[in-house]
Amino acid sequence: MNSIENTSTCEISAKSNLLIRLSVPSNTIQAKNLRVDTYASFWIQREMLFDQIRTNSYRRAILDQVKQGDVVVDFGAGTGILSMFAAKAGAKKVYALEITDMADVAVEMIKRNKLDHIITVIKQDGSTVQLPEKADVLVSEWMGGLGVDENFVPPLLATRNNVLKPNGIMIPATAKGYAALADDPSLTTILSFWYSKPYDLDLDMMGEFHGNTVLNARHSVLPDQLLSKEEELYELIMKSANKIDADFSFSGESRIIKDGSLSCIAAWFQCDMGNQTVLSNAPDKPATHWGRTSFPIYPPIPVSAGQIVRWTLSSSGVDLMKAIQSWSIRVPMPDGSVVERKFSGTQTPVHSSLFH
Amino acid sequence: MNSIENTSTCEISAKSNLLIRLSVPSNTIQAKNLRVDTYASFWIQREMLFDQIRTNSYRRAILDQVKQGDVVVDFGAGTGILSMFAAKAGAKKVYALEITDMADVAVEMIKRNKLDHIITVIKQDGSTVQLPEKADVLVSEWMGGLGVDENFVPPLLATRNNVLKPNGIMIPATAKGYAALADDPSLTTILSFWYSKPYDLDLDMMGEFHGNTVLNARHSVLPDQLLSKEEELYELIMKSANKIDADFSFSGESRIIKDGSLSCIAAWFQCDMGNQTVLSNAPDKPATHWGRTSFPIYPPIPVSAGQIVRWTLSSSGVDLMKAIQSWSIRVPMPDGSVVERKFSGTQTPVHSSLFH
Repeated sequence: MNSIENTSTCEISAKSNLLIRLSVPSNTIQAKNLRVDTYASFWIQREMLFDQIRTNSYRRAILDQVKQGDVVVDFGAGTGILSMFAAKAGAKKVYALEITDMADVAVEMIKRNKLDHIITVIKQDGSTVQLPEKADVLVSEWMGGLGVDENFVPPLLATRNNVLKPNGIMIPATAKGYAALADDPSLTTILSFWYSKPYDLDLDMMGEFHGNTVLNARHSVLPDQLLSKEEELYELIMKSANKIDADFSFSGESRIIKDGSLSCIAAWFQCDMGNQTVLSNAPDKPATHWGRTSFPIYPPIPVSAGQIVRWTLSSSGVDLMKAIQSWSIRVPMPDGSVVERKFSGTQTPVHSSLFH
Repeated sequence: MNSIENTSTCEISAKSNLLIRLSVPSNTIQAKNLRVDTYASFWIQREMLFDQIRTNSYRRAILDQVKQGDVVVDFGAGTGILSMFAAKAGAKKVYALEITDMADVAVEMIKRNKLDHIITVIKQDGSTVQLPEKADVLVSEWMGGLGVDENFVPPLLATRNNVLKPNGIMIPATAKGYAALADDPSLTTILSFWYSKPYDLDLDMMGEFHGNTVLNARHSVLPDQLLSKEEELYELIMKSANKIDADFSFSGESRIIKDGSLSCIAAWFQCDMGNQTVLSNAPDKPATHWGRTSFPIYPPIPVSAGQIVRWTLSSSGVDLMKAIQSWSIRVPMPDGSVVERKFSGTQTPVHSSLFH
């Protein structure tokens, strides 16, 4: 037995004898808040802060676009890192909105950086919070492995409508989702384990679950494993997007560019940070904490260059941090028959690298 | 943002149109059950079942020791894998105790393996469940990265007292904890990041948290990184152990065997499976899903061969799946001064590999 750390209780005992104890109320927890409370874990914050590609992309974007005297709102501030970048960029006032207990850490972190005269941490819902002034810039890091899959876009847009000046800036400015057909032999190897009668038992159930799950995995999909050109799944222009845009449904057809074994749809996001740089977890980009996103196709389907494959991929927001994905594939075979498969995915888990 | 999957809701949509929906009650969740409910996640079960060293060790031990006609109890049965091994070994009756909703999966898994005439899944507390007969064998996989650190020993022993025949067999038969002083440069590199004023900010708080946390990490401690001989932290003989034994406090002194940089206490467990084989996550053993356990010493302390280091390591069970650890170190330096450090750890998180 070995558990993923899923408590939101932690404490830090600092050199300075500071003791910060973070915990959710001990009697009852609403199931909905349970998901958000994930971000009240130091481990998640650590992964995000340690991700220097992610964090430096935001830092550059904020230093470039926040002007002297700006008012800035940071939606889902976590430890307050983006708020501190905004303060360092010259903002006269930053409102750091963080509804989990991580807000207590942000307060201390900001104080230690002597930025508490600029940044105010507010533990309230961004869509209803009443701020004394409108913001010039709204900054937020809300992306899942596929961009929209943590379903943080609807509350972000509600916050935008509530707090941002009409001519205000959103960082990131746009988000796009992409996908391509791919051949990932390591994924096939792992999935086939469940159907191999391991331990002389029928463990097909595990395979069915695993094969119907979106994987943010470390067994990377690399550029030379792509079997088709990429397709754009969605585009969100953060200034004008509305709630409906947070869901998407892509349906199209792709030409196979080389012989291979179609074992997944590889998907990723790309955000325009507003300073001519992008932040992305695409197969050809350096590794980030988002990993690579795969929608498994199991058993894999042999395909040949020139074949046309019809496929769909859709994501539907259900609850905060939760979206349900489904994907399907239709491959005409050389003998005239057609292979069709449908998958219905659970929400994206992370750290699904297994231990090898 | 990218969250660790911490919901206990999942569903599998199978080829056979079977739909199993696992979810905790949607209105309120007791904080205590929240921890146990981790095991109602397919992802944890998948990691454990995919760990072939772990699972085959149990399989061999059960096939070897469960006799034709035995009554077997499986405490914390999860997907029912150990129960199924017991049934295949010839047990006439297996009681699979599983208090999370994973019990529903176990029922279906056992049915698909046509073992439901032998195995009964019971969703009750092992310490109070009333079974129609006493067990010849009690099997359970309850170990954390340090053995006792998930604090599952007290409920296991209460279950033993309730269900096992006086001459019954426990699998595993014994559990021992070990530790040695070690030099893990990769750990130091990661920890020093937090104190490097990254992003031009003071992120010391993250370092304080990280350095005071027991790490079950993939940045392995290898045998040649050990700076001292191993010491035995505790020994549990499962047949005779009592609840107090589940906590331990080790205090001793070790001779440094080679020059190096003392950056952690490496710790591991070793279980006697009762068939002359052991199951362990020791540095010299093949990788398991437990990873390697490190108690960080940061900043690292330079040490030389022949030096005597006094150190302590203790673990105290708090709640189910939760233990608090503390460790300290006392190193006499060549100039006559003494370096002393104390650390107080949070419970062990897993998947703390970061993304590199």
